[in-house]
Amino acid sequence: MRDFSVDHRWLSINTATVRAQWPLDRIVIECARRGIRAISPWRDQVAAVGLDKVAALLRDTGIELSGYCRGGMFPASTDAGLQAALDDNRRAVDEAKTLNAPCLVLVVGALPGALAGRAEHKNLALARTQVADGIAATLAYARSVGMPLAIEPLHPMYAADRACINTLEQALDLCDALDPARSGALGVEGNERAALGVAVDLYHVWWDPKLKAQIERAGRARLLAFHVCDWLTPTRELLNDRGMMGDGVIDIARVRGWVEAAGYAGYSEVEIFSAQDWWQRDGGEVLDTCVARHRCAV
Amino acid sequence: MRDFSVDHRWLSINTATVRAQWPLDRIVIECARRGIRAISPWRDQVAAVGLDKVAALLRDTGIELSGYCRGGMFPASTDAGLQAALDDNRRAVDEAKTLNAPCLVLVVGALPGALAGRAEHKNLALARTQVADGIAATLAYARSVGMPLAIEPLHPMYAADRACINTLEQALDLCDALDPARSGALGVEGNERAALGVAVDLYHVWWDPKLKAQIERAGRARLLAFHVCDWLTPTRELLNDRGMMGDGVIDIARVRGWVEAAGYAGYSEVEIFSAQDWWQRDGGEVLDTCVARHRCAV
Repeated sequence: MRDFSVDHRWLSINTATVRAQWPLDRIVIECARRGIRAISPWRDQVAAVGLDKVAALLRDTGIELSGYCRGGMFPASTDAGLQAALDDNRRAVDEAKTLNAPCLVLVVGALPGALAGRAEHKNLALARTQVADGIAATLAYARSVGMPLAIEPLHPMYAADRACINTLEQALDLCDALDPARSGALGVEGNERAALGVAVDLYHVWWDPKLKAQIERAGRARLLAFHVCDWLTPTRELLNDRGMMGDGVIDIARVRGWVEAAGYAGYSEVEIFSAQDWWQRDGGEVLDTCVARHRCAV
Repeated sequence: MRDFSVDHRWLSINTATVRAQWPLDRIVIECARRGIRAISPWRDQVAAVGLDKVAALLRDTGIELSGYCRGGMFPASTDAGLQAALDDNRRAVDEAKTLNAPCLVLVVGALPGALAGRAEHKNLALARTQVADGIAATLAYARSVGMPLAIEPLHPMYAADRACINTLEQALDLCDALDPARSGALGVEGNERAALGVAVDLYHVWWDPKLKAQIERAGRARLLAFHVCDWLTPTRELLNDRGMMGDGVIDIARVRGWVEAAGYAGYSEVEIFSAQDWWQRDGGEVLDTCVARHRCAV
């Protein structure tokens, strides 16, 4: 297992972690100042600054991506809605390519309308079928441009409104169905990452009794991203009360050990949504804390 | 599938649903007035009125139990704590017996101290081992007095502080390990309920992609209780924002169909924790709504 205590070579910052404080161009500069070598930005943050400007800024600072957030949201209750989702995912793949991301992270979506509090139906099985179809269609395009897709299983508390892929097992079943050969996205020899894999975010999967077994099953080819934060007790609300690593109950180092034993050797990406705590603090304090905790609590 | 639209013969009220409005003796009387034939009371509510008084009231009104809430909370970080939990579960079995409950529901517990916001460790695997040991010990006593134990898998959002059994598959794996023969609790011929089974609460399991398969696996012998409410979008907080059947996104009738196809023929128990809505309303309105929704949304 890699020793993270000596430096933060493998720290990445998901830019949602300081989205309340700074626009993306400032985030990149603040990360560069601290020797943080990777980020994972969100599409709306990129759009607010401008795709080409962000790409240039990344080149200038030498900062690379650990992932691009996000594609997905495939289910819809009309054909036009389904097609719009596919078109949007194609654009997300293109943006990921422009930014030289190692993968496009997919938050797959769930019951149409539920995120706005007005679910259009209750058929979760239908939503899951639409997700499979949407990923299959997006995968065909993503392969053609060499962009791996990382399905992020979301915590079951988001099954209604954000993602109906809720366990690592379920995500890997889908990977095996759509990409049985674990073929490389780039179609070149020696590329070890599959075209379709998973983003393992501890906040979503830490509770799962089958977590270790499914990480082993995923292996190096399917493990495209690793996200960390912590689960607080109590958790005051469902979306934006994530904890800084070390402040909650997740045995992060144990799971990182499993992931690395399975062959993962990439970034440990910090992604904290925290309306009542970290989003209220100075952005520099947040980044400095991420660096410190990466060294002692990951 | 049974037709619930014509009467509410198979409605049971988990008494937490109106715990904010009334003490248990009043709840029993209000249920009897409405032709509700079963309840599932909580231990603290029983203790507040008195066990013998509650038993007499149930006899007088002809109301039976669909379950008794609750045993469990097995993990601890000291031997004395583990023993105290076993002693307490033995008392819970005795109370369930006195009230002629069909099963004692187990909310198994999780990381010691987490419910108070001060987790004593992060070893979820250890907690799960202690749960298995605690159920094994309690099962030996429960068998001796003929009281089935129903493991309630809780939603993964409670894995840290309330229950580290979080899927039906995990609960059934434990049932199979501790009671492989699916032997009847009463040790008499013709008793179809196993000594150890599960309480299927839709709020906790509705999201699970393996739900249908695991309900089939459970079968009549292991399906000891069936709880309903609804999942709201948005859900404003993790514990006390459950919805009335029909107000959320769970396809309740579909899952009831699966449960009944597997052989379950008991009560549909309404259990709603709702600090901001139903606990604020008149208790009579809540019960009348439960009756109405049982007929049209379950």
